[in-house]
Amino acid sequence: MAQIRKIVILGSGNVATHLGHAFQEAGLEVLQVFSREVEHARTLAGQLNSGFTDRLADLNQDADLYVMAITDDAIEKVAECFPFQDKLLVHTSGTTHMDALKAGSSRYGVFYPLQTFSRDVPLDYRKVPLCLEAHKESDKPALEHLAGSISDAVQWTGSEQRRMLHVAAVFACNFVNHMYTVASDILKQHDLPFDLLRPLIEETARKAQEKPPGQIQTGPARRNNLKVIERHLEMLKEQPDYHKMYNFISESIRRKYGFEG
Amino acid sequence: MAQIRKIVILGSGNVATHLGHAFQEAGLEVLQVFSREVEHARTLAGQLNSGFTDRLADLNQDADLYVMAITDDAIEKVAECFPFQDKLLVHTSGTTHMDALKAGSSRYGVFYPLQTFSRDVPLDYRKVPLCLEAHKESDKPALEHLAGSISDAVQWTGSEQRRMLHVAAVFACNFVNHMYTVASDILKQHDLPFDLLRPLIEETARKAQEKPPGQIQTGPARRNNLKVIERHLEMLKEQPDYHKMYNFISESIRRKYGFEG
Repeated sequence: MAQIRKIVILGSGNVATHLGHAFQEAGLEVLQVFSREVEHARTLAGQLNSGFTDRLADLNQDADLYVMAITDDAIEKVAECFPFQDKLLVHTSGTTHMDALKAGSSRYGVFYPLQTFSRDVPLDYRKVPLCLEAHKESDKPALEHLAGSISDAVQWTGSEQRRMLHVAAVFACNFVNHMYTVASDILKQHDLPFDLLRPLIEETARKAQEKPPGQIQTGPARRNNLKVIERHLEMLKEQPDYHKMYNFISESIRRKYGFEG
Repeated sequence: MAQIRKIVILGSGNVATHLGHAFQEAGLEVLQVFSREVEHARTLAGQLNSGFTDRLADLNQDADLYVMAITDDAIEKVAECFPFQDKLLVHTSGTTHMDALKAGSSRYGVFYPLQTFSRDVPLDYRKVPLCLEAHKESDKPALEHLAGSISDAVQWTGSEQRRMLHVAAVFACNFVNHMYTVASDILKQHDLPFDLLRPLIEETARKAQEKPPGQIQTGPARRNNLKVIERHLEMLKEQPDYHKMYNFISESIRRKYGFEG
């Protein structure tokens, strides 16, 4: 199989940045960074010792792989302007169908890292699950080998599976962080520091590393302790949004564990 | 100040067990474990090399502190049968008012460890925030000294503050774990292993250790990406509970970040 050694990255955001560094640390060569914002391209290219451009027509044609790490809405449009008909082109989106790249090249696929990226926070990429798809069977070995060179958790998925995985990730990451935020607001309103909750947050996540979360649910709703639930709702009555959320999620937990018909 | 050296624990559940071990490791003496279920009392007493009893009338009278780690509903009843009028008595509940102990002794307070305990999972107690209250000013120094001997995060709170802290903890722990469970269900339905989400869960909690969660919110709702939200809702349409929850929490995030009037 022809291995992937030279890569062009389209995009300069969080995903592009972390992927670029991971490729580089694995000994791969990032030839070029493309971004519509030439300053962004220049910045990331500076970190990766690569070339850069803000014109798709000037994409370096020597790469083995073109990785499109851009917003969902732009994927199809950029693909339509991709200048090479038979170069391997992948996007990194959780929600976008692989076929959004069809217009770009005869060889396309998906390279979706399942993680929450912050530009300033370094990350151990070996722990980041990579979900792969490829339109052509013949592109699969090289893509899998590349993924394995930066991550220990490589998974082939269908587009439907990948999209459900993204929905699940919204619950496990985005919604979870919103719960942290609500908790933080409540503490602030009562002059208590958020630090008090941090060990609890850490421990809750740690437990879920070891056990199925459905087996370690705790709290008033799980115990069907209606008295405590009532008292909590009463305490939240001046914050209709949080009151409703408390009620709604508690009901969901009670239903889940068989306390309500 | 008279230090607390000898302790009797009332209760034999998760909180009682973890507290008992923490006291012991700090060089304090657990004289006795009380539980209505004598076998439970015996088991924990065996671990702590202490006496045990299932009769309140037989409580050891030589302790400096009596720690009631029992269910919320039983606190007031057990306090009414507490046999010593001037011994320091505390409960470990997040929601129960300190005054629930009034009938038990003239010296009472609260010793509330803010953490999620599982019996089998060892825990670094030094990181567990302890929220203290005391009815008598004169009992505060000894209680604070004791708390400081097992934890680095000791906080005096009022009953109202402590109860709000407990509500916040329900969001940050119980509701968070339910989000993990929903995510896990969605994966299971699509033949994907929960392991794929574990690194994301870990990273999401880790970020909240360093930054205020309101500053690191990500995801479709935070970006006001209505197209993705619509697509996700469509994908969840056969699971009304999860559909409703996705919609509800996404709306809450959008309102929070100013995307909806």
